[in-house]
Amino acid sequence: MRIIATLVTDLFEDIEYQQPVAEFRKAGHTVENIGFVKGEKIKGLDSHTIQIDRNVRNVLSRNYDALFIPGGYSPDKLREDDNVINFVRDFMSREKPLFVVGHGLQLLISARMLAGRRVAGRKSLAQDIANAGGFLSGRKVMIDSNLITCSSANDLPTFTMACLHRLSAKQQKK
Amino acid sequence: MRIIATLVTDLFEDIEYQQPVAEFRKAGHTVENIGFVKGEKIKGLDSHTIQIDRNVRNVLSRNYDALFIPGGYSPDKLREDDNVINFVRDFMSREKPLFVVGHGLQLLISARMLAGRRVAGRKSLAQDIANAGGFLSGRKVMIDSNLITCSSANDLPTFTMACLHRLSAKQQKK
Repeated sequence: MRIIATLVTDLFEDIEYQQPVAEFRKAGHTVENIGFVKGEKIKGLDSHTIQIDRNVRNVLSRNYDALFIPGGYSPDKLREDDNVINFVRDFMSREKPLFVVGHGLQLLISARMLAGRRVAGRKSLAQDIANAGGFLSGRKVMIDSNLITCSSANDLPTFTMACLHRLSAKQQKK
Repeated sequence: MRIIATLVTDLFEDIEYQQPVAEFRKAGHTVENIGFVKGEKIKGLDSHTIQIDRNVRNVLSRNYDALFIPGGYSPDKLREDDNVINFVRDFMSREKPLFVVGHGLQLLISARMLAGRRVAGRKSLAQDIANAGGFLSGRKVMIDSNLITCSSANDLPTFTMACLHRLSAKQQKK
């Protein structure tokens, strides 16, 4: 079973966190919530709360098998922090699996890791993605090498299946 | 006195709307709230409500003397709409005054009107601004020709003074 780092803070899109995390856990994987303050309760746009397991200053990408970034306005807050950006960049430069929903792409833009990558993304971010050198594929869920992206909450089931498939494929290889 | 178009929808940063608008009105200017549905009550991040005066589909930049864009997460929603983007682009290409706070810059990015411009902006948007060809000036309030920008709510008094000065300067010329 695999350990999945999840970058999240206040104003996350509740369903974009809940649905994939429930499926990851059901499949036997461990999910750790990584944010600004260990033990802090953060609140989603729809007011669901979750607890932060680790401070982003104290985590290393090598201790995780994959990175999950739910959307909403949580990524806008997370991208102001250099530790967050370095953590994301680490996963991308090591080509470890990244699972990204909606506005989660903003972290890849801040990490300058979107150039040449094909993604599924929201219309609101279209110009930001293009300016960062990324390509909007037009698909609702896009798999580009280590990077699996999902444009909106409607497509979470397909996205989650693709993520689980990647996690199990990785296991078989090792 | 001048007529100021204000682009705004749900999740605007309350103070970034309220403080400048109060000062604009105190100085005798007219402020119209332009959004998606005329008559709709929209709600800020801190739950203050304001009413939309006009649908963005039914407005023309030539009927306004300036455009004001408060921040928060309202710009993220507004930038998905082509009428909004065309309206913003009109003000920029006619070099009419634009007053923009925080995330309001996202509308200028989507309108592809930030290249070569110097702005005051938030750290969360730094990479988006650079990728769009804009320059973060490092100042809290920046005046670049017709474009006046403000990085955060703390600097609203200076920003508002600069906007009022621009509005009165414009009046003296005509």
